[in-house]
Amino acid sequence: MAQQDRAIRTRRVILEAAASVFDEQGYDRATIAEVLERAGVTKGALYFHFASKEQLALAVLEEQVVDIAVEPQKIKLQEFVDAGQVLAYRLRRDPIQRGAARLAVEQGSNHLDRKQSMISWTRFVEGLLNEARERGEILESIVVRDTAELFVGAFAGLQMMSHAMTNQADLSHRLTVFFEHTLPSIAVPAVLAKLNLDPERGEKLEAALRQKVPAAAEVGESVAVS
Amino acid sequence: MAQQDRAIRTRRVILEAAASVFDEQGYDRATIAEVLERAGVTKGALYFHFASKEQLALAVLEEQVVDIAVEPQKIKLQEFVDAGQVLAYRLRRDPIQRGAARLAVEQGSNHLDRKQSMISWTRFVEGLLNEARERGEILESIVVRDTAELFVGAFAGLQMMSHAMTNQADLSHRLTVFFEHTLPSIAVPAVLAKLNLDPERGEKLEAALRQKVPAAAEVGESVAVS
Repeated sequence: MAQQDRAIRTRRVILEAAASVFDEQGYDRATIAEVLERAGVTKGALYFHFASKEQLALAVLEEQVVDIAVEPQKIKLQEFVDAGQVLAYRLRRDPIQRGAARLAVEQGSNHLDRKQSMISWTRFVEGLLNEARERGEILESIVVRDTAELFVGAFAGLQMMSHAMTNQADLSHRLTVFFEHTLPSIAVPAVLAKLNLDPERGEKLEAALRQKVPAAAEVGESVAVS
Repeated sequence: MAQQDRAIRTRRVILEAAASVFDEQGYDRATIAEVLERAGVTKGALYFHFASKEQLALAVLEEQVVDIAVEPQKIKLQEFVDAGQVLAYRLRRDPIQRGAARLAVEQGSNHLDRKQSMISWTRFVEGLLNEARERGEILESIVVRDTAELFVGAFAGLQMMSHAMTNQADLSHRLTVFFEHTLPSIAVPAVLAKLNLDPERGEKLEAALRQKVPAAAEVGESVAVS
């Protein structure tokens, strides 16, 4: 059991090291040698878990939390805003999320299917918006699929710009600006007036979440297969 | 003179070939060999104009038309919309614009300064929005810099998503969705009601422009230095 725990921990260390190399170098320039150095593990340990650089990249993309769990709110659209702000916050801190973002954004210079990540995110946002629609929170004129794809596409660009300009430090602000510009065209007025678009919200929600459950990474590890 | 014309034409052929290779392969995977093959020129001809792959990439970025000239309109915000739609149309057709877009989006795996392109585009959009403000077309609450950066960042993401999903075929539609969601938060109501957000507008404007002046590429060539 202790041995299995160690294997799980080692796998996670390698994955985080790989994600940070992908984040900084991109897929093409990333090397197994650099991942080894950063993870501080042997070649044997790495190849025990991952057969190739491609396998490492796929694992980073899989590990990415596409289903951002946020606290239930009276207004469903608030959960939509919160999911965006939590993701923006994680893109500043979480190596897996950062590495996955770059892998998903890179344009087909590898064999990873970058469409898949966009489709998963679109489905997630569509789900939230459809629930909001059922509750009468969004305007009749809204075509949920279009709005969901707008959100996913624009978010990808905003995080890319924020990465280039401030290494994601201003992403929460950029996201708030996006919400301020778009939500009046999405939410019915009574709902709009109650939405909290505070750019600090992602950090606050993440802190509250970490107090409630033992560190998310550990929960993830306990079900991971080594 | 005829010789100089030929040199200018050769330079353009090489540049378009390089742009299409950058568009498809990205900077890291692009090779001089592939550019030569696609351009159908000799190594000597290429190196006469460009010393390296990096020089080729810089030239593609320089050649990119950041200042999209559109027909003057009574409403300045219409010119803002038009510039976006013309760019969306060119991203479907123009190899230079496509290659430059990918080079600008790629995350620092080369030494090209990808911030520069975003800053240039932001300045261009800011100029249009400031003129619109002077004419009383936009709402008091708008912070022009924030709105300009939102537009540039979101556009980059939308073109990336459109590239992945449909090779830019649906970019004009995605841009119209973006305008429909954001312009009600930007324009004063009387102006908003008059804006034409037709996704076909980019193609129509480009066709009208090409009828007025001899092909834009030729105009560009006549001032290019070989």
